[in-house]
Amino acid sequence: MRTQLDCIPCFVRQTLEAARHAAPGDEALHHRVLSRTCAAIPTFSDDASPPMMGEIIHGIIREETGVDDPYAEIKRKNVRRALALVPRLERFAVESRDRLEAAIRLAIAGNAIDLGANPDFDLEEELCRLEEQTPVLSDLPALREALGQSNRVLYIGDNTAEAIFDRFLIRELHPRRVFFAVRTRPIINDITEVEAREIGMHQLATIVDSGSPLPGTDLSRATPEFKRLFDETPVVIAKGQGNFETLSDCGRSIFFLLKVKCPVVAQMTGMPEGNPVLVRGGSRDRVTVE
Amino acid sequence: MRTQLDCIPCFVRQTLEAARHAAPGDEALHHRVLSRTCAAIPTFSDDASPPMMGEIIHGIIREETGVDDPYAEIKRKNVRRALALVPRLERFAVESRDRLEAAIRLAIAGNAIDLGANPDFDLEEELCRLEEQTPVLSDLPALREALGQSNRVLYIGDNTAEAIFDRFLIRELHPRRVFFAVRTRPIINDITEVEAREIGMHQLATIVDSGSPLPGTDLSRATPEFKRLFDETPVVIAKGQGNFETLSDCGRSIFFLLKVKCPVVAQMTGMPEGNPVLVRGGSRDRVTVE
Repeated sequence: MRTQLDCIPCFVRQTLEAARHAAPGDEALHHRVLSRTCAAIPTFSDDASPPMMGEIIHGIIREETGVDDPYAEIKRKNVRRALALVPRLERFAVESRDRLEAAIRLAIAGNAIDLGANPDFDLEEELCRLEEQTPVLSDLPALREALGQSNRVLYIGDNTAEAIFDRFLIRELHPRRVFFAVRTRPIINDITEVEAREIGMHQLATIVDSGSPLPGTDLSRATPEFKRLFDETPVVIAKGQGNFETLSDCGRSIFFLLKVKCPVVAQMTGMPEGNPVLVRGGSRDRVTVE
Repeated sequence: MRTQLDCIPCFVRQTLEAARHAAPGDEALHHRVLSRTCAAIPTFSDDASPPMMGEIIHGIIREETGVDDPYAEIKRKNVRRALALVPRLERFAVESRDRLEAAIRLAIAGNAIDLGANPDFDLEEELCRLEEQTPVLSDLPALREALGQSNRVLYIGDNTAEAIFDRFLIRELHPRRVFFAVRTRPIINDITEVEAREIGMHQLATIVDSGSPLPGTDLSRATPEFKRLFDETPVVIAKGQGNFETLSDCGRSIFFLLKVKCPVVAQMTGMPEGNPVLVRGGSRDRVTVE
């Protein structure tokens, strides 16, 4: 998905919020980050996806703060918050008649944890809404069918604490072999190999470095292992808007699980903003966006 | 009032909206305007007020569109909409027990007409809210007292169609002599001398060119006539956020009538966002913002 003009004001807003998260109270730094980002915007390629912009912006924040992972503490805090919810999540998962659907809904609920497009997320509120909200799962039968024919799944992770929620879905995918893809380096609050191991993901799945240093999946920089898995694994599940924005026109069929967090993606998917969505896309004949 | 960091994302958003208003459908132009504005942001002076940024942004839009007054048609349309409401406004004005207060409330309601900070305004809704909303008029006694001691008032206008609403207040100020100040050239949908005459303002007040080419009042570029009036007229009333942002720390007492349209001004005035407000400021001992 190419960056749209409406993404630009949103980048600038996210930049200021991110700078404040990364270096609370340092107004001079916030100012420098904002100025450098604005100066960089005219140099952005027309073909770049929003996560590519995210990489540039967060590179500036990293340089200005001198901190390689400015969100390390926030990620840890969110993991603690998510872990505290596990008993409730577990109840929701096991008490449902349709365990796959319940696990999908949990996985999407975890996608609310986002310091980019949705910094004011409220995990507890998200859980309350889980019981009420009707997610758009029209592609669930297609996912069931694909899973029925496959013993391997590539699952592309997104944010760090979100992966606590993903564990329920990955458990449901067993006994298939699951590969859990992570970013190659810290970017915003996205999950890397270190954090995936910290939350025990390696006990449920084979962790794979996607090679992406941006908040999405950049196939042009994929590791050979990820590229092979991406090309050969029959079922690919990708979490979150960043993966959607970078993979929605990649040429292969992918099941995207996400909350639609902005009007641009809402318009492109035809899904209402704020909605939890399971949408099949990526191949030319389905949701494919310019 | 100095531009705050939170103003920057808002400028970028306003730039895109303004470019779309000025040249509907011309995406390449919107893109150029957005790029040039982002490139200009790092060059903005730290001391500049938000309307000074507005001048730069709208200068870019003017250059890119090649149109001196891109909002001419929108201004005319809004004037027609406001004129259609005059019978309702008149009833509200004459049926009130306190005619000065009613006229002030009408004048502030007109301030909803704003293509900058509040492009989605709904005049009709604004009128419905007029009957319900309790404006913050704590400085009304001070205005009454000041008016009791003066036979001249300098009234600094704001948006074009808003002046239809201002006429009720200016009528209430009679028999004092009223000077109605306008921008020196078209900027967004602000009122200039041409439009003030078109709506018959010259029959109620002496129209004065403020010298300001920006959506506010820039005293450093005031015409000699405006400067003299500003220094010597006992009561100055200024409409809207742009005049507030440029005059709130000017050193003389001013009665500002405005709707608080953004969180930055809300925080600075201590008034809740969205509220109609009569606030005395400008002198060092009252609302004075850095």
